[in-house]
Amino acid sequence: MRQVAILGVAMTKFGVSEKTNLEMFTEAGLEAIAQSNLEPKDMEALFFGNCLGDFEEGQLHMAPFAHAELGLPMSAPATRFEAACATATVAIRHAALLVGAGVYDVVLAGGTERATKMGTPLATRTFAMASQAQHETSAGITFPGVFAMATHMYSHKYDVPLKELKRHMAGVAVKNHYHGSMNPKAHFQKVIDVDTVLGGMMVADPLQLFDCCPFSDGAAALVIADAAKAKDLVKKPIYIAGMGQASGGPLYLQKDLTRVKVRETSVGQAYREAGVGPQDIDVIELHDCFTIAEILALESFGVYDFGKAYDAATTGETALNGTKVVVNPSGGLKAKGHPIGATGAAQITEIVEQLRGESGPRQVEGARIGLVDTLGGDLGTICNIILTNVVK
Amino acid sequence: MRQVAILGVAMTKFGVSEKTNLEMFTEAGLEAIAQSNLEPKDMEALFFGNCLGDFEEGQLHMAPFAHAELGLPMSAPATRFEAACATATVAIRHAALLVGAGVYDVVLAGGTERATKMGTPLATRTFAMASQAQHETSAGITFPGVFAMATHMYSHKYDVPLKELKRHMAGVAVKNHYHGSMNPKAHFQKVIDVDTVLGGMMVADPLQLFDCCPFSDGAAALVIADAAKAKDLVKKPIYIAGMGQASGGPLYLQKDLTRVKVRETSVGQAYREAGVGPQDIDVIELHDCFTIAEILALESFGVYDFGKAYDAATTGETALNGTKVVVNPSGGLKAKGHPIGATGAAQITEIVEQLRGESGPRQVEGARIGLVDTLGGDLGTICNIILTNVVK
Repeated sequence: MRQVAILGVAMTKFGVSEKTNLEMFTEAGLEAIAQSNLEPKDMEALFFGNCLGDFEEGQLHMAPFAHAELGLPMSAPATRFEAACATATVAIRHAALLVGAGVYDVVLAGGTERATKMGTPLATRTFAMASQAQHETSAGITFPGVFAMATHMYSHKYDVPLKELKRHMAGVAVKNHYHGSMNPKAHFQKVIDVDTVLGGMMVADPLQLFDCCPFSDGAAALVIADAAKAKDLVKKPIYIAGMGQASGGPLYLQKDLTRVKVRETSVGQAYREAGVGPQDIDVIELHDCFTIAEILALESFGVYDFGKAYDAATTGETALNGTKVVVNPSGGLKAKGHPIGATGAAQITEIVEQLRGESGPRQVEGARIGLVDTLGGDLGTICNIILTNVVK
Repeated sequence: MRQVAILGVAMTKFGVSEKTNLEMFTEAGLEAIAQSNLEPKDMEALFFGNCLGDFEEGQLHMAPFAHAELGLPMSAPATRFEAACATATVAIRHAALLVGAGVYDVVLAGGTERATKMGTPLATRTFAMASQAQHETSAGITFPGVFAMATHMYSHKYDVPLKELKRHMAGVAVKNHYHGSMNPKAHFQKVIDVDTVLGGMMVADPLQLFDCCPFSDGAAALVIADAAKAKDLVKKPIYIAGMGQASGGPLYLQKDLTRVKVRETSVGQAYREAGVGPQDIDVIELHDCFTIAEILALESFGVYDFGKAYDAATTGETALNGTKVVVNPSGGLKAKGHPIGATGAAQITEIVEQLRGESGPRQVEGARIGLVDTLGGDLGTICNIILTNVVK
């Protein structure tokens, strides 16, 4: 396989938008193409992520319409991917695989979502369709409920009193809002404190409002190309070092919600391909849909032992300038926001900018290797991508 | 790229089913795997097509749940594709590209749809979401309307009186129902005559009921593998000779509905890759969502000159034992049925069985090269796959 590079990245401001999915994706896509010193006519394919356009805007089959708005050539096929919250990451992985294989030299990939268009509480109900409909959604379970159960199991399994665990989970929210306060594209840019989190309304016991990420509107896109061509086009190409994708199936197959085996499988693939391990990672964008999710992810990665990551945020080890590894410098899903089908592309956008040294006040100094982690559904899909600024 | 082979193919009976999408896809998937003399654990990835599971069953993110029902390994990623009616073909093309590239050796690909679950007339309204929502669906256009306009344009452009054109279009329906009468998996297995078609209720002037394909329930799946391994596993592997996929964007970019340029682009890619032309094709499964669509497709392929295919069915040239090329021996979408996200996989199933010589009373004698054609939306996506039983 050829080495694969990312040339240009772009994302819209995340938050509440009156723009359509096509308008947002076009904004991000054209900016990513321009940053790559290319033109729409140079794109050989579009790998497009969107989750719920049919419910949001009555729009199925969105890929060829995004393709048309961007002015891509007819011969460049546009393909829609959907993997719940991991939608964009899965689209991007397939794009990178086909560039690596030599099928395409230059492609555009990314995603968009207009999640606030669905309204509350309909959004939670609608998005619960990413759980198994026959056995789970029909029983009334939604994602806050799944991660609430995981929190109780974690507290019980590792003998961390729930009150103490919740204080440390609040630390995750505080850290990610602090990071988000330095990100002008973030949905929420205000710092919060532990009292803000512990004083929030109850969503699904023990998860309170600030334990949960928001739904957001937004789009993000990137240009992926054969690394041999990258140097001629941009000053700082970022390379894909390794990727993984694995399928966990429905929740009832997950014997222990505190051990996300599907993530261990996926990140293991990515580590092997990249020839690195958890100790080599400088910066991580991971799927903090709920505060507990960040803790579980860090343990799945092997960055912390099982049962040991719960206080990582409160000790400051995972914050900017922390001693272990910087986690979610963008603000994460928690503060940057979570436009479902765009999230993975925005995570990669952050890591690429970090590895270029372009992240301003939230720059992770000397970052060389970054890890992206996106979870789809209640552990149904995991996709990981490891990026580096070091040529192989 | 390595040569890619299809080992096993299977489809459920098409029609109206009480089974869920997951049940139907599991039935087809396990049969395709067994026919390949493999087991679920041997599958290295799942390329899964479904269009409207969220509207049909409240099920988004269906790929990992299908993966679980089939018992595939956690390390084998399951990915959902959606390209309107071309959904399964696009999923299969990506599977074949990645097997050809050496990323995977053996994968399962296919699709499922429970389209009758949406009910009538909601199904037509819902499926119109595959048109551009902002400028087309909102204006009230649905697919029968698009192909009705194409019929009027064809009549006008080529100076074929509408009454005469409609009689020839009825011939397409009669031929495909005749073929379907020999297919025990077809939704409709009764022969009809021209009077049946011309006596049908008006749907969108000039298209009457029998000019239109039905919505159906069904699933189809195939095992795709490195050709080097195929001979050891099955007696008659069928090879992928060439593929194409192109994007036409929204209807308002189609200057002339009688010239489906996006199909000319896609099939041109497939011809070049296969090193064949229209004169080499023995059997075609094409996207006859409406009778006029079969006529337009045959002209896009170059099987007939533009303006010359309209009487191909009534002259008998495209029927079983016809003199030109056998078109839709399965019965096509028209009679075999149209479970949206499964259609492309069922078209390939038919061509594979034809090239193996296993099609019984509807066998195309001596078939060596077959063409699959699937259209997504109102010309937004086209995907073509050329298959052969001749080793390269």
